[in-house]
Amino acid sequence: MRMAELSRESGVPVATIKFYLREGLLPAGERTGRNQARYGDEHVRRLQFVRALLDIGGLSIAQVRQVIEALDAETPTHDVLGVSQGALTLPTTEASDEDRANALKWVEEVVAGRGWDLEEDDNAVAALVSSLATLRALGLRTQNEWLESYVGAAAMIAEADLDNVASLGNTESIVENAVVGTVVGDTVLASLRRIAQKHVSAQRFGSASG
Amino acid sequence: MRMAELSRESGVPVATIKFYLREGLLPAGERTGRNQARYGDEHVRRLQFVRALLDIGGLSIAQVRQVIEALDAETPTHDVLGVSQGALTLPTTEASDEDRANALKWVEEVVAGRGWDLEEDDNAVAALVSSLATLRALGLRTQNEWLESYVGAAAMIAEADLDNVASLGNTESIVENAVVGTVVGDTVLASLRRIAQKHVSAQRFGSASG
Repeated sequence: MRMAELSRESGVPVATIKFYLREGLLPAGERTGRNQARYGDEHVRRLQFVRALLDIGGLSIAQVRQVIEALDAETPTHDVLGVSQGALTLPTTEASDEDRANALKWVEEVVAGRGWDLEEDDNAVAALVSSLATLRALGLRTQNEWLESYVGAAAMIAEADLDNVASLGNTESIVENAVVGTVVGDTVLASLRRIAQKHVSAQRFGSASG
Repeated sequence: MRMAELSRESGVPVATIKFYLREGLLPAGERTGRNQARYGDEHVRRLQFVRALLDIGGLSIAQVRQVIEALDAETPTHDVLGVSQGALTLPTTEASDEDRANALKWVEEVVAGRGWDLEEDDNAVAALVSSLATLRALGLRTQNEWLESYVGAAAMIAEADLDNVASLGNTESIVENAVVGTVVGDTVLASLRRIAQKHVSAQRFGSASG
């Protein structure tokens, strides 16, 4: 198909497609003339992939290029996932070195034996440690059993996330599903948690309104 | 204590304390003169509570006032929690009526028997339904087992959240811990989920780098 048809098929404007071509996010089409090229279904697919990473994943152009380069180099799935998931940063909060060290020690104790990687330069670990440090600095209650339940729930969800994508077969689909699933999954989980809390609160504390 | 000492104790500037007094977020002190009043520990406590709801919970002044009014009216804990948790809104995404109706039907099937309340005017339900509709509109894989695991994990977490606060005894502490725990807990969970995903991905897909 020509560029105009590729745009219609994918819903991505021609100017944007040209930008992605220049930025190396989309492979060049098959040359058919001085100013013409032919594109295939793999280009439609790749455009959807790029849009998912940019729009839903919130990745930068440079980060998407990194993921694409890893994909095109036939890097093993786990490593491409490392690149894309590593770009999905979470907010970290201010905390003193001491509070962060204590929080990290606490997490290490609770996840002991699970074989999880807890390097502090990993954004997810930094976000976790600073969140827990914030809770403690505020004098909020943080019981061991509470964190243990979170760790158990996270392990369960991660298995479900990988189950959901593992059988997709090709790395591009797996990465797309993982990125979108991780970002949208955060909201799915947060909203289910609130719905469940409301139910448990009614059971524990009863309600005047019934 | 005088206003200046209340400010030092709580770390809240005098001008802000006066603003909270005018807005009804803080009860008046005991009058000791024309322009003087005495404040107690309950004022320090209340200031921490207000700051937690505003800064961590992201509630508006009007929403904090609603929570405080419910507290002061000795409304049952479950109902005060309903007011405060209801103010912790999640983002909803655009989705067609049909996609949302299908997503709601899917959730209803998966949570059947749990007794969870799924009213669509509840923000958490709207966020859940629009997120699932987005996943499906993008053609992403959404297996029943995947959502079932999320629902199971959310139920587990909600129990842990309520266990963590239930024994605090007074409604103000419970509400403060629940609001902060819900907001910060979202990040705790999201970061643990990424750490666990990395571990499961290494198990499933192996890694060139080890």
